[in-house]
Amino acid sequence: MRELLPDRKAELVNSFSNQGLMKTFNATLERVDHGHIEISMPYSDAVSQQHKFFHGGGIGALADSACGYAAISQLQDGEASLTAEYKINFLSPADGERLIAVGRVLKAGRTLIVCQGDVFVEKEGQRKLCATMLMTMCVVKNLSHK
Amino acid sequence: MRELLPDRKAELVNSFSNQGLMKTFNATLERVDHGHIEISMPYSDAVSQQHKFFHGGGIGALADSACGYAAISQLQDGEASLTAEYKINFLSPADGERLIAVGRVLKAGRTLIVCQGDVFVEKEGQRKLCATMLMTMCVVKNLSHK
Amino acid sequence: MRELLPDRKAELVNSFSNQGLMKTFNATLERVDHGHIEISMPYSDAVSQQHKFFHGGGIGALADSACGYAAISQLQDGEASLTAEYKINFLSPADGERLIAVGRVLKAGRTLIVCQGDVFVEKEGQRKLCATMLMTMCVVKNLSHK
Amino acid sequence: MRELLPDRKAELVNSFSNQGLMKTFNATLERVDHGHIEISMPYSDAVSQQHKFFHGGGIGALADSACGYAAISQLQDGEASLTAEYKINFLSPADGERLIAVGRVLKAGRTLIVCQGDVFVEKEGQRKLCATMLMTMCVVKNLSHK
Repeated sequence: MRELLPDRKAELVNSFSNQGLMKTFNATLERVDHGHIEISMPYSDAVSQQHKFFHGGGIGALADSACGYAAISQLQDGEASLTAEYKINFLSPADGERLIAVGRVLKAGRTLIVCQGDVFVEKEGQRKLCATMLMTMCVVKNLSHK
Repeated sequence: MRELLPDRKAELVNSFSNQGLMKTFNATLERVDHGHIEISMPYSDAVSQQHKFFHGGGIGALADSACGYAAISQLQDGEASLTAEYKINFLSPADGERLIAVGRVLKAGRTLIVCQGDVFVEKEGQRKLCATMLMTMCVVKNLSHK
Repeated sequence: MRELLPDRKAELVNSFSNQGLMKTFNATLERVDHGHIEISMPYSDAVSQQHKFFHGGGIGALADSACGYAAISQLQDGEASLTAEYKINFLSPADGERLIAVGRVLKAGRTLIVCQGDVFVEKEGQRKLCATMLMTMCVVKNLSHK
Repeated sequence: MRELLPDRKAELVNSFSNQGLMKTFNATLERVDHGHIEISMPYSDAVSQQHKFFHGGGIGALADSACGYAAISQLQDGEASLTAEYKINFLSPADGERLIAVGRVLKAGRTLIVCQGDVFVEKEGQRKLCATMLMTMCVVKNLSHK
């Protein structure tokens, strides 16, 4: 795994800190590497569905961010990216204290970057895969991702 | 379009009010019919991405809820449902004051309910389609959706 | 609905006739309009699964072609396109004599074209929706689609 | 990796041989294990698109079959399964002599089985990942998969 250049990493960390939704989620960037991003969020009622599990839409949003920043970590200078689409399958109820979304680049083309996201839920020290995502980013030239 | 029975409607409205994420989003149930649900949310920094548009993950979460309640509106007594998966395509930047997610049931089977979601963004009185979703709910017998 | 220019239409029909898989399926272009394509295929054992229904993979392939040509019908001169991804939900068993896939452009951007596909099965004169697709094409400059 | 019971394996091999579409594709079951299936198909004009690569719809159909049989390999006696939906991302042009689709079960629940499919293309002895799939099977009690 290649490490990111310090400038690139600072830029990405700054972009993350400007995502209001990630602040609302109390989400934390746990790992920032070239094509590999991990983001965690604690459970709270603010991100729940009606059964007091994590809301599926919140799980999707966290995985979307992890995949998105994995793609951003591989952009060239002057490039930005937009989410084209994503698809998520829920594998287990997200019942626990914390979610960890792992986003990785599967294929970085000139125009499209395809990422895979895995979301784990932690409960009493056990980590369990609860969702998996395929996601496509579109590389654009004219939009800052800062 | 069939109207829901008053009991069923009250139950659904109550379930929605227990979704912490929808509260966090300041989301409102705009329409509750048999197989057709509309949910809106205002723009705020709390649901933004780094460019001050609505976060794609938040758009997905809103559409997921609209589709989910469209499915729930067609359940039989004693049935509940869980999100199996969803897929969303982003069609335009979600730049505006308000989102409206429209969830409709495409096909309600005994075990699976397939829904379609359309998300519109409103800006200065204009409404524009900004995302579309396909979503699958799994009907279960042993989980309350209240 | 705008009609295609005669040249463009001839080019598209020619491209379709060069798709070996569509020949294998005995598929027919039923309608070619700007952003709207219909393709049919008859049932035969050659496209079946083990229960003598249409194979889900064949249904996906037909919808993929309908969506792909819907996108191609809206390309500019000198542009070509590649399938980025698709997602299909199966709504009813594809038990019948004929499939008709309808592909339509939902949104044509400069880089991405998002299409929706609906697949109908015909049995004894009745037409039933059996599958629905969301599909993304990527516009490229350097590949002929002829 | 657990091996399948001989009876179960024979049943699955028999089901595969009854899929007309797999015969049309000259597809071969390369590996049959508990939750892990590999299917190959040679290139021919019969499965091509207009550029003489493998047709994306054919790639999807092969991956769908590999995922489907991976799910079937884990069914209990008296159970059958139906494809609910799949989503495929194309990563590289499928330019080569042979495709190999690898289907694996990610999560087998009582009602839903979620599978992952990877499709490789072989060209002059080199194997390259060209597509990846997420796919959901629905377990049913009343339909033979033989």
